Amino acid sequence: MIDKNTKIAVIGLGLLGGSYAQGFAQAGYQVIGIDTDASAIELAREKGWIVDGSADPALIEQCDLIISALYPQTFVEWVRENRHHFKSGAILSDVTGIKRMVISQINHLLPAGVEFIATHPMAGRESRGIEYADSSQFANANFIIVSTPFNSERAIQTAEDIAEILGFHRISFLDADEHDRIIGFVSQLCHVIAVSLMNISDDPRLIEYTGDSFRDLTRIANINEELWTQLFIGNKDNLIAQIDNLIAQMTRMRQCILLDDEAQMKQLMKQATERRRKFDKPKK
Amino acid sequence: MIDKNTKIAVIGLGLLGGSYAQGFAQAGYQVIGIDTDASAIELAREKGWIVDGSADPALIEQCDLIISALYPQTFVEWVRENRHHFKSGAILSDVTGIKRMVISQINHLLPAGVEFIATHPMAGRESRGIEYADSSQFANANFIIVSTPFNSERAIQTAEDIAEILGFHRISFLDADEHDRIIGFVSQLCHVIAVSLMNISDDPRLIEYTGDSFRDLTRIANINEELWTQLFIGNKDNLIAQIDNLIAQMTRMRQCILLDDEAQMKQLMKQATERRRKFDKPKK
Repeated sequence: MIDKNTKIAVIGLGLLGGSYAQGFAQAGYQVIGIDTDASAIELAREKGWIVDGSADPALIEQCDLIISALYPQTFVEWVRENRHHFKSGAILSDVTGIKRMVISQINHLLPAGVEFIATHPMAGRESRGIEYADSSQFANANFIIVSTPFNSERAIQTAEDIAEILGFHRISFLDADEHDRIIGFVSQLCHVIAVSLMNISDDPRLIEYTGDSFRDLTRIANINEELWTQLFIGNKDNLIAQIDNLIAQMTRMRQCILLDDEAQMKQLMKQATERRRKFDKPKK
Repeated sequence: MIDKNTKIAVIGLGLLGGSYAQGFAQAGYQVIGIDTDASAIELAREKGWIVDGSADPALIEQCDLIISALYPQTFVEWVRENRHHFKSGAILSDVTGIKRMVISQINHLLPAGVEFIATHPMAGRESRGIEYADSSQFANANFIIVSTPFNSERAIQTAEDIAEILGFHRISFLDADEHDRIIGFVSQLCHVIAVSLMNISDDPRLIEYTGDSFRDLTRIANINEELWTQLFIGNKDNLIAQIDNLIAQMTRMRQCILLDDEAQMKQLMKQATERRRKFDKPKK
């Protein structure tokens, strides 16, 4: 339950944390920013996105809602070091893209009287840093709440309030296992592919002969290596299973090509075409 | 050398052949259309893109320039059956996306006095059929001329004229080996990836949790199975080598994830990011 008296802290004023602060500020809420980078605090203050900010985590002692916009492992480390600063009754939330590891570790660390509700705003872009913050990106994005059976109604309602205040397009619910399995496929596997594709060749002449296909498949090869290393390792089992699935499918197609098996090749292409059609965005 | 007296035939009035006929007609040239599908002829005639059309290939006997917009193997079969219809001095060109097989087979089949100049307009889209023809697509596209040491100046000039009349963005030259190697990577491998990715799972819930990454990587999974089966088989050696390259790169990343090798993982991501930057289109 968020109301205008709720004191909100955003930990980590990067692309996503900055956009959160901006969105809350524009909706009339008071936000406190915590970041080790003084220039990020300075920028957020100049823009009017935070009413106060500091590198000192003690500032969260007065806050009712603390939202971490840190990378997954960094988030866990941060809570380990600062758990004594949470006030009793506070709610902690996050933005991380992997959930099993984060939920189990954070719940293990938090003092009694502080509740963690995990959420995954499916937003972000290739750039990093608060200079690229833009809360208007949330209007097209999905907000996933990854609650556990131990979460209170109050915490779940708070997560829904975050999504509504920030203007997310849709709220959905997944448990942590489902979340990590699905994200391992639709997001992480795609990033492994894009990076792998770019790493095959550095022939500069390729640029001249590249069409939209290659550009589309490698757009996300422009990747934040600090964040994605944490995401990949934190979802190791699912991601490795998905890499193996893709290699198996490519090996199947390779075999068709090798053996001139046109019938099977066409069948694979038709199945892909049919399935892909359902993913088309509705025409505006 | 194309001038307003040049009689041009387009063989196969599909998406690309239709766009060729449209482009030539709009530039004031007279085009004859050949297609086994009477409704395609009819549509091209109604639109004013052809002055005459037929299912009967004998119509090409009066033509100076014959451009095949057929699929690669279909093109070879068509020339085998219709080579006696070419008039002496005629020039034959094409639009196929693979070149070694096409050039060697067509040159083997053509009668003396008819010259083949291979070209690859890097255009097209996911839809098929003349209903989707649109010559304005050429304005952003690259036109590759794949000449051999045996091509005459006249034939090469004719290919350049085609690109200029149709308004292609850029003309470039590759030999057939280079062409097939580059296309195997920037185009065909990408299509194998997209199809393979779609074939991993048919869980309908994925749609709800899909962001732009997965959509971008699978856009081209909406694929014309007749055309792409011919392209894959006709470039077998290059495409299999590229599939093996991607599997090797993905296996490398898989190993890093398995072993928590963060340093190596970051290095792979940074290399991909750096290389990808060069592929960004210049901002308008």
